[in-house]
Amino acid sequence: VVRWEPGAPERLQKAALELFASQGFEETTAAQIAQSVGLTERTFFRYFSDKREVLFAGQDQFEQAFLVGMDEAPSDASPIGSVARALRSGAALFPDERRSFSRKRQVVIDQNPPLQEREQHKLSHLAITLAQALRGRGVDELEASLAARCAVTVFELAFARWISEGERRSLTDITDEVLHNLLALTRRSRV
Amino acid sequence: VVRWEPGAPERLQKAALELFASQGFEETTAAQIAQSVGLTERTFFRYFSDKREVLFAGQDQFEQAFLVGMDEAPSDASPIGSVARALRSGAALFPDERRSFSRKRQVVIDQNPPLQEREQHKLSHLAITLAQALRGRGVDELEASLAARCAVTVFELAFARWISEGERRSLTDITDEVLHNLLALTRRSRV
Repeated sequence: VVRWEPGAPERLQKAALELFASQGFEETTAAQIAQSVGLTERTFFRYFSDKREVLFAGQDQFEQAFLVGMDEAPSDASPIGSVARALRSGAALFPDERRSFSRKRQVVIDQNPPLQEREQHKLSHLAITLAQALRGRGVDELEASLAARCAVTVFELAFARWISEGERRSLTDITDEVLHNLLALTRRSRV
Repeated sequence: VVRWEPGAPERLQKAALELFASQGFEETTAAQIAQSVGLTERTFFRYFSDKREVLFAGQDQFEQAFLVGMDEAPSDASPIGSVARALRSGAALFPDERRSFSRKRQVVIDQNPPLQEREQHKLSHLAITLAQALRGRGVDELEASLAARCAVTVFELAFARWISEGERRSLTDITDEVLHNLLALTRRSRV
């Protein structure tokens, strides 16, 4: 019988982040993470395939947060209009209570190139998923890829600002600002 | 005395690609690559730090090709105007004679996730370099990052089309088309 540990994944995530930050990602083992919150290594592996994935859990939920917004866009929305909805619902996954966790997580990622590559992979995958959803809405292949990548660029730059030192605005507000900057930038050009 | 081998890097690159394609990237060694064109392993390592770098040689030259165009943009060019110049000069680094090599290279990369991550890293680095150059032209931080990332998105999607099966247009023409699509897309939106 597998015993259910209420809140175990969240406790493991929090503990992992503390250990990665204090003693380094490479130096921390799954067993140490589990032990630090009174759980076994076996319990750890019930929730995460390895210690790296503790930092990247919930990719499905992450992508779903964006897709939900896009699904709610009117059927005649422009590709960028649909993407704006997706960005707004994606941003809602990161309320201010989550900012301190996200900041700590970023410090760990910034110190470890393979984690940076994993983070890039996560964002590339989001772009693929959004492009697919746009094509499902009848947007042609090239426009879907362009709009999806613009969305990911906006999210990435907004997220980096959201977790920057001293920043207090919500991710939703910052995302709106970055998107409007992107649109202003391209509208202003005479190419 | 180090003996100079005329054309050695190009011969090694060509030979490496043939071996990666025929027997797999993992299965190929630097020594095999060198031997297949009558050179020593020592000569190989004079030009490349490892077998992976044979596929990623010339990052400086790659980035310079974009920067040259940006430098030629008028000082009052908009950020996207500067980026358009950079894209045009970057595309010129890939004349039609190079398409067959680029196609073969892509097949090898597509089969090997670590090579895909290395390719992504190369493009992320280009975005950082272009953003820096835009800031040097007086563009503010956020706009510089946005415009640089748009440029890389356009290059990536144009390059993928350029090496797609049956495609005969030049990378320059395709790049122009993709950039115009991006601009049309953002101008059309009512966000």
